[in-house]
Amino acid sequence: MSACGRADFCFLLLLGLTLCPLCVTAGKILIWPEDFSHWLNIKIIIDELIERGHSVTVVTQSATQSIKTDQSSGYNVEVIQVPYSKKDVGDIYARLLKYWMYDLENDNMIQGFVKLSELINDMFEQNHALCREVFAREDLLEKWRKEQFDVLLTDPAIVCGELLAQKLNLPFIHTLSFSFARAMERHCGKLPATPSYVPAPGRLYTDHMDFLQRVNNFLFVVLTDIAFDLMAVAKWDRLFTEVLGKPTTRCETLGKADMWLIRTYWDFEYPMPLLPNFQFVGGMHCKPAKPLPKEMADYVQSSGDDGIVVFSMGSMIKNLTKERANTIAAALGQIPQKVIWRYTGEKPETLAPNTRIYDWIPQNDLLGHPKTKAFITHGGNNGLYEAIFHGVPMVGIPLFSDQPDNIHHMKTKGAAVMLDFNKMQTEDLKQALVDVINNPFYKENIMRLSQIHHDQPMKPLDQAIFWIEYVMRNKGAMHLRVEAHNLMWFQQHSLDVIAFLLSVIALVVYIL
Amino acid sequence: MSACGRADFCFLLLLGLTLCPLCVTAGKILIWPEDFSHWLNIKIIIDELIERGHSVTVVTQSATQSIKTDQSSGYNVEVIQVPYSKKDVGDIYARLLKYWMYDLENDNMIQGFVKLSELINDMFEQNHALCREVFAREDLLEKWRKEQFDVLLTDPAIVCGELLAQKLNLPFIHTLSFSFARAMERHCGKLPATPSYVPAPGRLYTDHMDFLQRVNNFLFVVLTDIAFDLMAVAKWDRLFTEVLGKPTTRCETLGKADMWLIRTYWDFEYPMPLLPNFQFVGGMHCKPAKPLPKEMADYVQSSGDDGIVVFSMGSMIKNLTKERANTIAAALGQIPQKVIWRYTGEKPETLAPNTRIYDWIPQNDLLGHPKTKAFITHGGNNGLYEAIFHGVPMVGIPLFSDQPDNIHHMKTKGAAVMLDFNKMQTEDLKQALVDVINNPFYKENIMRLSQIHHDQPMKPLDQAIFWIEYVMRNKGAMHLRVEAHNLMWFQQHSLDVIAFLLSVIALVVYIL
Repeated sequence: MSACGRADFCFLLLLGLTLCPLCVTAGKILIWPEDFSHWLNIKIIIDELIERGHSVTVVTQSATQSIKTDQSSGYNVEVIQVPYSKKDVGDIYARLLKYWMYDLENDNMIQGFVKLSELINDMFEQNHALCREVFAREDLLEKWRKEQFDVLLTDPAIVCGELLAQKLNLPFIHTLSFSFARAMERHCGKLPATPSYVPAPGRLYTDHMDFLQRVNNFLFVVLTDIAFDLMAVAKWDRLFTEVLGKPTTRCETLGKADMWLIRTYWDFEYPMPLLPNFQFVGGMHCKPAKPLPKEMADYVQSSGDDGIVVFSMGSMIKNLTKERANTIAAALGQIPQKVIWRYTGEKPETLAPNTRIYDWIPQNDLLGHPKTKAFITHGGNNGLYEAIFHGVPMVGIPLFSDQPDNIHHMKTKGAAVMLDFNKMQTEDLKQALVDVINNPFYKENIMRLSQIHHDQPMKPLDQAIFWIEYVMRNKGAMHLRVEAHNLMWFQQHSLDVIAFLLSVIALVVYIL
Repeated sequence: MSACGRADFCFLLLLGLTLCPLCVTAGKILIWPEDFSHWLNIKIIIDELIERGHSVTVVTQSATQSIKTDQSSGYNVEVIQVPYSKKDVGDIYARLLKYWMYDLENDNMIQGFVKLSELINDMFEQNHALCREVFAREDLLEKWRKEQFDVLLTDPAIVCGELLAQKLNLPFIHTLSFSFARAMERHCGKLPATPSYVPAPGRLYTDHMDFLQRVNNFLFVVLTDIAFDLMAVAKWDRLFTEVLGKPTTRCETLGKADMWLIRTYWDFEYPMPLLPNFQFVGGMHCKPAKPLPKEMADYVQSSGDDGIVVFSMGSMIKNLTKERANTIAAALGQIPQKVIWRYTGEKPETLAPNTRIYDWIPQNDLLGHPKTKAFITHGGNNGLYEAIFHGVPMVGIPLFSDQPDNIHHMKTKGAAVMLDFNKMQTEDLKQALVDVINNPFYKENIMRLSQIHHDQPMKPLDQAIFWIEYVMRNKGAMHLRVEAHNLMWFQQHSLDVIAFLLSVIALVVYIL
């Protein structure tokens, strides 16, 4: 929807007011995407932008894992040559997966801490190298400057999109579900810190906390804000200062965003304060189900009244240990439903006749099938929103990143049972499935969330596009950015005012 | 738009999910409106609700000043007989006007304070009597219970709508622009208090405050919150407790609202945090201009390239002193524009040939006329939004209530010049008009605000109706209400947590 197409705008135009420079018909958008499921998500926006006649340029690296760089997808691609290979990146993710799925269980605390530090450092080294390569490419920067993009869309999970936007002097928009402890949104985006009723992601609390949880949440919020700054000082601030040629920090640069598109909504979040430049777009990719492939459709149909269970651990998990795979397969064999399992590892010995393994599944179409009774998921944002969209209760087996938090939200809203991947036994998984399938509590709750999801003034994808085009036609959205960005942290929280008032009171008491 | 009409809902319905009980096709709405311009505003919502097939019942009092009670307007009316007359109510407003327009200038501080206290007390007595009459009408309460309304829409400027909703066990929605100091929204609605960058209405600051302003704003926020409670304890809490039959407060009852419809938007507000159950609907009543009546159209046309100035002090001001009227008329006579002045007082002696006085003007149509160069306004929310909608710069002469704050917003956003009604001289008004008409600064800024106003995902009236129907079809919106409502004030602001942590630190320091 371009502004010019709207009745009240046309009315203003008829009055001879020269608003047309502000209207977007076809614009140019620069994209700084992250890999894997993040890419799948931003790709939805890219496709829609192209559909609406915009020109899209994607910046990626030679070592990308998921991003198609063959220019057959309708967008332009700029591939940054990086001094590490696809395999190097893949290896880090494999180590990360191994860390979360096995090491965390088996290592002692010091071993675990060392491994995680090494991992984070190696990821940082790659990201840092990517940034250095981008900003060394004067030719590319010059080309992009000449292109005169209208906006840059960045995924802050991979650093430097915000820096590129500032370097090119472009309005920019973040797209994310949430950062660890929501430190990025709160500390850099100035989302109000209300730790008494807004649990920081990472704590697995709800908005209803007892005193000790509130103490814990308060400390967690304060400490993660400090940690965010320390990490940035150690890793990023010097690069940001060098590139921009003036003293700055990563946090300050992140906070210059015109808009934050958050990939959740009140179907997922506990109610909390928002800012005018934060907009929810959770579930952009969800659609009504299309018919299944013939073989799969027949299999699903053959399940009769018992229906089916859909099972996927996401695109990153290729393999499980023999023991875990057998534990899971044995549980699946004990339920009357048929099971469709997306799995590329070796076929487990305990696999029962009611379970079929597939390399790939049309997940959204399966979740939208009327015979689907439950979804076993690792709790990635994409799958979780498909389950909300179609109203399918979940058994969550989270592994890492935002997954434990995601599943915890669904559990506390009564729409999922949460299991521990490393500790769960066959009986646990079986019982969880029996519960979410047969206890109407779970179905009622997921239907309530589905109702909330569908009952919005605008669909999530339309919402995302509206605000991207909004930033384009208004050359930014600085009028939606709170003045807190121009205050020091102690000013923002009125600590200087409180100290002053306490001093005055102390003085008066002293004199009296 | 009913939920059932939306594609994704129909899709869900096709799946056989029984969502239809949640859909609204035609519902029943109970309205608790305030008089004067507030009524004009809520009437826009009422008309649209009726247009969409809903049944609307308006509760008013026998002494109403503006609300039509003859049942010819398409809504049902329940008139509460009150022990005071229309004239009694009119007298209080006349005293209030006199107080703001003359006494404030001429009385000393003690005289002023006594007069204002008496006024507030007299208004309270009337409002209190109205409430007592409503809750004494067991027959009416029983009738309304049987009617099974879906929602109650209340203007919190007149107390007891929230209490009626709780008594009838109905979901309810507030409609307001803002309360004094925004105490009601912040203290009872739990809107985050961020006094470092959100100026409290009543202070005439912007979001950019120096240290002393921040100290002042901080104290103002704290003190008005306390004052709100003290006032409620003195005037209301006993009645609320009696009616509900359990200990409660007015503030707690206000905070039970499912939704707050705020009659402003980011064209007016400084950026600030919002809550999920706060929605902006400012400018609901604005529409493209219709043609003017023949005589007026000819007069406007005769203004040539100079154009016209529209002048109204709102529906409450019937009269000015001879001196003020002459001062104003003399200024109007000195500009090349023709002036259309809505005024029912005696014709000023200094009235020049370029100025015509009307009992009533089609204000929106005049402001939308291409020849209109400026708007002289008292700064009521309705007129101000018409000026934003049509992009007309303003000369603001605020009198009372939210008017000084409204005009201050427009002034600091560069779209208006603000004058002091009592102090301004002929030359001041003339110069203000010359400035807003000839200095492109004002026109550019009001056009920027107009652009922000028009560039929303949904028009304000549609937004209001969407959220009213949302509350109806979802039987409330408790899932959008922050958990802060269930915390004590010191818990909400983490003061207990901070005290605990400081104690621990003190203990550790003491031991060491």
